Amino acid sequence: MSSLSFHVSDPELSEVAKLQERQARACAQVDGKFSHLFDVSLDPEVIGKKNCENFIGSVEVPVGVAGPVTANSKEIILPLATTEGALVASIQRGCKAINLAGGAQILTEKKGISRAPVFRCKNGAHAREFVQWLEKNMSALKMHAESTSAHLKYLSHQTWIRGRHVYVRFVFDSDQAMGMNMVTIALQKMWEAMRFPDVELIALSSNVCADKKDSVVNRLYGRGFWVQAEVTLSEHIFSEVLHTNADELLAAHYAKNLVGSNVAGSFSQNMQVGNAVAALYLATGQDMAHVTEGSQASTTIERDGSDIYFAVTMPNIVIGVVGGGTWLPSQTETRQLMANGQQVTSELLATAVATAALAAEISGMSAVTTNTLAQAHQKLGRL
Amino acid sequence: MSSLSFHVSDPELSEVAKLQERQARACAQVDGKFSHLFDVSLDPEVIGKKNCENFIGSVEVPVGVAGPVTANSKEIILPLATTEGALVASIQRGCKAINLAGGAQILTEKKGISRAPVFRCKNGAHAREFVQWLEKNMSALKMHAESTSAHLKYLSHQTWIRGRHVYVRFVFDSDQAMGMNMVTIALQKMWEAMRFPDVELIALSSNVCADKKDSVVNRLYGRGFWVQAEVTLSEHIFSEVLHTNADELLAAHYAKNLVGSNVAGSFSQNMQVGNAVAALYLATGQDMAHVTEGSQASTTIERDGSDIYFAVTMPNIVIGVVGGGTWLPSQTETRQLMANGQQVTSELLATAVATAALAAEISGMSAVTTNTLAQAHQKLGRL
Amino acid sequence: MSSLSFHVSDPELSEVAKLQERQARACAQVDGKFSHLFDVSLDPEVIGKKNCENFIGSVEVPVGVAGPVTANSKEIILPLATTEGALVASIQRGCKAINLAGGAQILTEKKGISRAPVFRCKNGAHAREFVQWLEKNMSALKMHAESTSAHLKYLSHQTWIRGRHVYVRFVFDSDQAMGMNMVTIALQKMWEAMRFPDVELIALSSNVCADKKDSVVNRLYGRGFWVQAEVTLSEHIFSEVLHTNADELLAAHYAKNLVGSNVAGSFSQNMQVGNAVAALYLATGQDMAHVTEGSQASTTIERDGSDIYFAVTMPNIVIGVVGGGTWLPSQTETRQLMANGQQVTSELLATAVATAALAAEISGMSAVTTNTLAQAHQKLGRL
Amino acid sequence: MSSLSFHVSDPELSEVAKLQERQARACAQVDGKFSHLFDVSLDPEVIGKKNCENFIGSVEVPVGVAGPVTANSKEIILPLATTEGALVASIQRGCKAINLAGGAQILTEKKGISRAPVFRCKNGAHAREFVQWLEKNMSALKMHAESTSAHLKYLSHQTWIRGRHVYVRFVFDSDQAMGMNMVTIALQKMWEAMRFPDVELIALSSNVCADKKDSVVNRLYGRGFWVQAEVTLSEHIFSEVLHTNADELLAAHYAKNLVGSNVAGSFSQNMQVGNAVAALYLATGQDMAHVTEGSQASTTIERDGSDIYFAVTMPNIVIGVVGGGTWLPSQTETRQLMANGQQVTSELLATAVATAALAAEISGMSAVTTNTLAQAHQKLGRL
Repeated sequence: MSSLSFHVSDPELSEVAKLQERQARACAQVDGKFSHLFDVSLDPEVIGKKNCENFIGSVEVPVGVAGPVTANSKEIILPLATTEGALVASIQRGCKAINLAGGAQILTEKKGISRAPVFRCKNGAHAREFVQWLEKNMSALKMHAESTSAHLKYLSHQTWIRGRHVYVRFVFDSDQAMGMNMVTIALQKMWEAMRFPDVELIALSSNVCADKKDSVVNRLYGRGFWVQAEVTLSEHIFSEVLHTNADELLAAHYAKNLVGSNVAGSFSQNMQVGNAVAALYLATGQDMAHVTEGSQASTTIERDGSDIYFAVTMPNIVIGVVGGGTWLPSQTETRQLMANGQQVTSELLATAVATAALAAEISGMSAVTTNTLAQAHQKLGRL
Repeated sequence: MSSLSFHVSDPELSEVAKLQERQARACAQVDGKFSHLFDVSLDPEVIGKKNCENFIGSVEVPVGVAGPVTANSKEIILPLATTEGALVASIQRGCKAINLAGGAQILTEKKGISRAPVFRCKNGAHAREFVQWLEKNMSALKMHAESTSAHLKYLSHQTWIRGRHVYVRFVFDSDQAMGMNMVTIALQKMWEAMRFPDVELIALSSNVCADKKDSVVNRLYGRGFWVQAEVTLSEHIFSEVLHTNADELLAAHYAKNLVGSNVAGSFSQNMQVGNAVAALYLATGQDMAHVTEGSQASTTIERDGSDIYFAVTMPNIVIGVVGGGTWLPSQTETRQLMANGQQVTSELLATAVATAALAAEISGMSAVTTNTLAQAHQKLGRL
Repeated sequence: MSSLSFHVSDPELSEVAKLQERQARACAQVDGKFSHLFDVSLDPEVIGKKNCENFIGSVEVPVGVAGPVTANSKEIILPLATTEGALVASIQRGCKAINLAGGAQILTEKKGISRAPVFRCKNGAHAREFVQWLEKNMSALKMHAESTSAHLKYLSHQTWIRGRHVYVRFVFDSDQAMGMNMVTIALQKMWEAMRFPDVELIALSSNVCADKKDSVVNRLYGRGFWVQAEVTLSEHIFSEVLHTNADELLAAHYAKNLVGSNVAGSFSQNMQVGNAVAALYLATGQDMAHVTEGSQASTTIERDGSDIYFAVTMPNIVIGVVGGGTWLPSQTETRQLMANGQQVTSELLATAVATAALAAEISGMSAVTTNTLAQAHQKLGRL
Repeated sequence: MSSLSFHVSDPELSEVAKLQERQARACAQVDGKFSHLFDVSLDPEVIGKKNCENFIGSVEVPVGVAGPVTANSKEIILPLATTEGALVASIQRGCKAINLAGGAQILTEKKGISRAPVFRCKNGAHAREFVQWLEKNMSALKMHAESTSAHLKYLSHQTWIRGRHVYVRFVFDSDQAMGMNMVTIALQKMWEAMRFPDVELIALSSNVCADKKDSVVNRLYGRGFWVQAEVTLSEHIFSEVLHTNADELLAAHYAKNLVGSNVAGSFSQNMQVGNAVAALYLATGQDMAHVTEGSQASTTIERDGSDIYFAVTMPNIVIGVVGGGTWLPSQTETRQLMANGQQVTSELLATAVATAALAAEISGMSAVTTNTLAQAHQKLGRL
């Protein structure tokens, strides 16, 4: 047993054969049945090289659909990969409310993907010189970075000095890709072209990016897409579709999202945005560790005369429609389903994420006010 | 088009028929092929009732394996559902280092699942009376809560007053389930039994839980499992397996995890724990929105004589092995694979999560020091 | 010049003579007049030994008074040491509103003063043993701590493990003193009595206390006093005294304190509590570095029928009426003025702090809504 | 009693007479002696109009001196108004270490004073138009702002949209003044000149400034002065002056400032910077509520060969040498003492703040490692 390893090193073997060898080892070793796990339709040749080393099987996650929902006057569909009963139904109810109100309005701004190396200088004065040198030489340096990909454009950079360390957060437009790997490669190239004496590169990524972690830097500067979905709902929609009323909704929003999050020491002022983000990311082939950034959203619920103005603001939606796991067959198809005839772009995907989040918040916050949260759970027989 | 909806309401139809109807509508409507998305092996009867309304298809995510790796003197296997090339290889390299060092030591503490309602009282004095009343009546109240499930045990509660609002964070042992729905139902029951005058329940969940969001409350009190994995690595392992050295590793840890995270306004002092968490959660049927909480980890890298002491501390790993999406066939099998002959428990899963995170940090931080991050990305031909 | 030092070491000299010698050196060296700075009424003998080494002079800060204001049915006076024109007038206006509403209601809870050492163990398992050992031996250990002062009582402790480090936040009742030094001495004694093998004390204070810094730990567990002041104001008071109305006040509170603070990445949901805290701390002889903790306050503004419910919640008011700079003559007198016939206790001082903060928020937020902020500044002719 | 008020409204009375009337009322009312509090040397005419309404007396705070200490090759003196025994001695010891190392190097960058109004638009699209309109019209708008003072120059602005609210953080150079009031007046003027339809000003200050509160926005963008002090200390200085060694110092820095702060949920990675900031602010006539911002500092302690590199980075030092309480006689003199012959500028004051903070950290962290914290407290006989 202790000699078992899933790494199959024989260079003669095809990826298919390696997959089978790994599966055989698992069966010989572990007491269990793996017929579902091992039943793969993915091509081991591509998977092994691009997405997943030691490929042994695959998990199947159900996809439910909500919508069509109108966003910026066009209808999109929300494919949601989730196992959390009631989530699709909840988002669907939110979509119904949005459609009754004439659709959601979406603001999208491509902030760009960031990567922030940290450099060590000799001292603070040297650090400042380095910062100034970067400023002066950026037009040359960015050419080195951009030479690594036709899809990469330098946008801006911010710098912070801490003692003799310099943190530089470089921001790039990575076209239709999420872009983390593109910028990593680009920055390696840029670093090799930096002819500033006595500066050491300590880490190509310093956590100031900030990638896949909670951070205020991304809230303030944005990352990937900054996107906001909004809709104004009439009282009629609240009573008919959502079975609640404005007063209770505002009281719950106040006590939960605005004050409760603060009591918790959380900067996330929303109810369940993470649920919508996770389900749409998983359905469309995104990197699931970006759920953390995506959940950093702010929900707005305000009176607007006798109506209610509802919005979800998401400062760092880090997504793409090419690269990573986006090429996978079923995930590619969900994006086509989502686009509903429109061109599949990362901008459209950002629109869908914000719309799904808005629908989730409208419906979820309504359920909070009516204490139907527990009922929904019981009815669906879940633990 | 505008009349299209994926909700099929005919009560006569079986779930299978409804699934087919939804698929037919999608094909009629949207210009695209959905052969992979629609190729499901899951049972629509169960999925539709328990996990995913408007079920239309499923996505397939590849699973790679790392390990076996020794944790608390037993070997476990790490099944990782991911499309991020190099991640499985990275964790596998970390496992190799851990095994060479004799295995990882894991500390696990079940903190319990929390749900925090918010109540509105008449004023501050009334709020304080309510808090005192709760304290005195908790033994009776918890019986109401525990009556809703044989698997639920009240553990503790904390209270905070803000003006006239009272936030109460109830904590329960939910046995082998993640437990969010169990406690929601239990608290609804407990609320109905609260005979304290003039108190209004504003929301059964107030964001002080805190569920699926960044929060300091969970860092300090823990949630689900608090778990820590550690190992002491000799210099030999660093040079042979990880191709780095202690000095560079410590410099990168310092500049990136300890200072860089602070520059970013992030409380997460780690490199890529979110990657390991997301991959293991997805493989084992967890709620993917809990990745946000899981990524709130702290990596420790310290000298220990000529060795390096390495640890990852994770205060809120919210997981389960029953309930939610855990019953899905392929996900059930990955847990069996993971357990490698041991009993499949949530404790063991927490152990696996921490071990995977430790392996990811050991390997990832080593790559950071040698600037092989970019090389790994290029070699694997990703964007 | 380079040989100048203000340290006078001659042991024969009295403190008065040393003071004069330092003043003479300053005059000989620095081109400037120091007649006001050097005009001291404080006793150099006591100052030099207890409060301020290298004593050379003193600064005079004006004190304005607001009130009397009714708090918990008794009248107190708010002495405010400040140079920020309009602050006293603003707080005075708030007091007027509070009095018209029948006075403020104050909730006070002594949380106790905390000091959190950090210990290094051999590994995580050893750390956990140490935590358990502390738990079991606390009744003996606390006797060692309490033996250092008749005014010190152990209340509780919390522990966190990070790798092999253990953070223990000990909390004590320090009677009428702020208590930081008392607990430092007590913990030194307690540490000397700890007979647990192989544990190193790395620092008697680990920043988990947390002393004089922003922190969520103090928001959640409290420190010194948790105190809340509240009042319900009728519409009449708003229009007559505060020249504003409920709608505008709520809109400003929402956009500024609840959402604006979040945009800023701040956990402080208030308008100008720091101003009230600083002025009252300075007037009453507190340690001015505790202003940081004191400013961590949450303001509540809510509709209550046609009235407005107003509250300020302050989780960590770290103050005392004995020890430190509290004995200084003018500061002692301001506390007597404040007490207005009541006994001068730290509880009463906490009450005054919260009442002043409430008055500042009521008046300040009203000014925000009417854009009289700029007018007040112009009228007072300040920069 | 209930009719007592300290507001004296008779317009015929001089400020001196009003002061005496207030003092008489206090004596008649409150049982206490106020001879020290009432013994004022300040001019009531000026105080009452500029700094402190309802002026009734003054508090005297002792000033100790540390230094001279070399900063950027020139000697400055650190006047510290404090009642915390051991603080001046601690900073003095730090100055000695700095001088032995050849003096501190200071980097200063004037970031400018910020004020961030919040506006409400009709919806998100309208909000975006407003943001774009501001961008286009800024050259005209800034003229309105700058017309209010010859000392004010617009520097930049940042904007954030949240739903239909727009937060704009305007940044100005306020010359030698701290500038908060200048920018408030300027923004009022600018607002009056904004001819963009349907936008409401909700609050001239939205907490995104962020003024006198903990915030990450100020850490990232800076406010007032960004300033950093650094020095490299040889082992000799550690053993001779500071009685510690590099290993213990680094262990304490790591466990306390880098990890301990994180455990506490604090972004402040320092030991006692707040102490130095408060003492120097009080001595030089600053607004004491700015201590909160000033305490947001990061201490760096790193090996540099056999030496130790020490730095303190302070992103938001909000100070001035004109305006507010800076004109007070004793405070004016302390600034002259501080300057030691150099011109008294806000830049020089920022330099002194950073140097004092550096000295406090060097000495304080050394005391932490040797557990002399408790001894120092006991020796000085404090509570």
